[in-house]
Order: sequence, then structure tokens, then C-alpha cells
Amino acid sequence: MAPGVFMPGVFITLEGGEGAGKSTQARLLAEALRLEGHEVELTREPGGTPGAEALRDVLLFGAAPLSRRAQVLGHMAARADHLDGLIRPALARGAIVVCDRFHDSTVAYQGYGLGMGDPALLAFIAAIREEVGGEPDLTLLLTVPPELGAARIAERGGRPDRYEAEARAFHERVADGFAALAQGQPERFRVIDASPPQDQVAATILTVVHKRLASR
Amino acid sequence: MAPGVFMPGVFITLEGGEGAGKSTQARLLAEALRLEGHEVELTREPGGTPGAEALRDVLLFGAAPLSRRAQVLGHMAARADHLDGLIRPALARGAIVVCDRFHDSTVAYQGYGLGMGDPALLAFIAAIREEVGGEPDLTLLLTVPPELGAARIAERGGRPDRYEAEARAFHERVADGFAALAQGQPERFRVIDASPPQDQVAATILTVVHKRLASR
Repeated sequence: MAPGVFMPGVFITLEGGEGAGKSTQARLLAEALRLEGHEVELTREPGGTPGAEALRDVLLFGAAPLSRRAQVLGHMAARADHLDGLIRPALARGAIVVCDRFHDSTVAYQGYGLGMGDPALLAFIAAIREEVGGEPDLTLLLTVPPELGAARIAERGGRPDRYEAEARAFHERVADGFAALAQGQPERFRVIDASPPQDQVAATILTVVHKRLASR
Repeated sequence: MAPGVFMPGVFITLEGGEGAGKSTQARLLAEALRLEGHEVELTREPGGTPGAEALRDVLLFGAAPLSRRAQVLGHMAARADHLDGLIRPALARGAIVVCDRFHDSTVAYQGYGLGMGDPALLAFIAAIREEVGGEPDLTLLLTVPPELGAARIAERGGRPDRYEAEARAFHERVADGFAALAQGQPERFRVIDASPPQDQVAATILTVVHKRLASR
């Protein structure tokens, strides 16, 4: 979190492209940790607080286009509300926060997906991220081959959001972005192969999380 | 605008508290400049582009609360879309942009009004503002005694937004914030007494703007 501010809780984020099973795995992880007696806040981005959910509607489903920088700042606005209203208070009281998407998604989706890795946009995202703060203790990057991710999305149905509706090349850039982030911060990231059946993936994740909790 | 980027246009903002007559004066200024043959973009914040107007609804009329930092970032998201989609293209083709509220309103309303001048929040706003960019060539600060501003708002009727609905002490802090900004940047600001009849105020503003245009 903010430098110099000790937070007794543990902040775990799940990241990855469409159809990697993040939401399901976040829920299974939260359930397993609760059974072990931990206080767990299960949450997601964009959203997690009423104000951030209102921004989510504009960001993901709004009919009007938004410039790349506006999308970055809109996600950061939702994130600031989420951090200030839910994540930081939960960590301050010692809870484990399990969050489906966080800062890394902004870098991957807006910086690499939309921005095609434009260095000026990546620097803009990094500068705003620095101001907003909120560094996870552990980030689980769930990866699946693109065909499997696309198939899972098609199965799920429902109205695709602004990003789900993007073309295949966009999603490949997003995956490249996540891979670059994980390579750059190996201490924080664990890359999880999310192709196996979900119970098997859940068991892998729980092992990784137990190791992280034991190292505190 | 961004350092090192020459913009052939002229960027004029109108600032001030509630009931100062900014919107009316912005319209009268735009009309006068058009009659003189200038290309003028008359616009306002939050808003000015379809995406920013969608964010405006959440920011001004959303039922859900937003943290102070989230309000700052939400306004900055709308502003980035406005800059990227309307203001910068207009300035690049040589237009005069007349904008009702801009960065200074974020400092005055979120920094001084909501944040009560909290140095950490003011520093946060300054850092984000630096990243978003967009410095006006001339800022007209319209001032009226608080009683007159409140009377004009009451006359106008309609649904008050999130900030209009704040108490008197909030609006006094906003006025103090604007005054501090104007004192800190005397080159950019002109303080206009907006108590006289609107035609008289409009004439004063036009004189100030003509001087600024002549000095280019």
C-alpha cells in the first residue's frame, strides 16, 4: 500500500484475460480461506463500492466513446474509491482482500490492448498509479490459450462489455502486457496455468497463497 | 497546453463559485468573438464531449458517494476526454476555446471545498493535473458576494447538483480557494467583479480578452 503505512492484512489480486476463470477462482479462494477462519473481503474491479460500480457502468457499458487517457483516469477514479472505501479499511483491520482485477489490468487493457504499448501512455498510467497507490502483496496471473479463453466467453453468453467486444489482436496484446508485467515483477506475480479443470486450478492457487501467508 | 507543443488557438476559461454568472458570460463572450469573425468553441466542464457528459452525470448527480480522491480522478477523466476530443483539436486548428470551468474548479471545489485545503489532497490534485495537462492562456475569475450568488441560484431553481447542495461554509472555502489560485498565478488570472448588470460585466470581460488577444 502507501509507502511507510503498515497494513496488517494481505492484499491478493487475480489478473488475466477474458475466459481465464478469474471470477470463479477468486470466489473459490475466498471460500477456502474463510473455511480456514480468515476474514476475507472478496471484491472486483472496476467496482467494489457503490460509487465505483456507477463508474463501472460508464466505463464498460457506456455508449459514448472515451479517449484512452480518459479510460485510464476513469478506471483510476473507480479504483481510488475502492481503495479508500473498502480495500484499505479491510487491510487495516487485518482482513485478506481477494480482488478480481486491479492496477495490472489497466496496464494490460488500456496500455497494451488499446494503446498498443505506446510508451507515453504507459508512462501516463505509471504516474497516475503511483499517485493512487495500492500495491498487492501477491498477484495471481491466470493464463489460458486464447482459443480456450474465447470458447469460455462464448459459453458464458450475456452482453459483452467494451473490452470483451474487442478483436482477437487486442486480446493478444493484453496477454502480452500481462506477461511483461509478470516478468518485470517476479516477486509479486505467480503465473498460474488455468487450462486444467477448475478444482485443480483452485488447489494450485491455494498452495501458492498458503506459501505467501506462511512467509509473512 | 503540453510543454513544447505550440497551439495556434487561444484557451480561455471562466471560473468562480455558484451564481457568479459564468455560463451566461461564457455564452456572451463566445457570441461577441464570433461576431468579430473568430472561430469559437464554447464548452463547459465537467462535460463537453459525449463521454465526459456521461461521467458528469455520475459526478454531479450520482446517488452513490465517491471518495475525495475518486471525485478528483473522475473530474480528471472527464477533462482528459474533453481535452483529447475537443479542446486540443480546436486549439490546433486555431480556434478560441471558451470553457466554463476547468482545472481551477477541481482545486477550488475538491481541494478547498471538500478537502478543506488538506495539503496531501492539494498535492494529489497538482500531480494528476500535471499529467493531464492543458493550461489556459487566460482565466477569468468571476466573483460575487456570497449572498448575491446564493440569491441567483435560488432564482434559477432546478435540481441542485452534488456541490450546489453543499452548505454555505463549503462555498466560502471554494471562494477562498479561487482567490488563492488567482493570487498565485497573476499572469494567467483576471479577477472580474460580476456583481454589476450582465451587459456591463460582459463589456469588462471583452475588454480583458481583447487585450490578451492583442498581446499574442
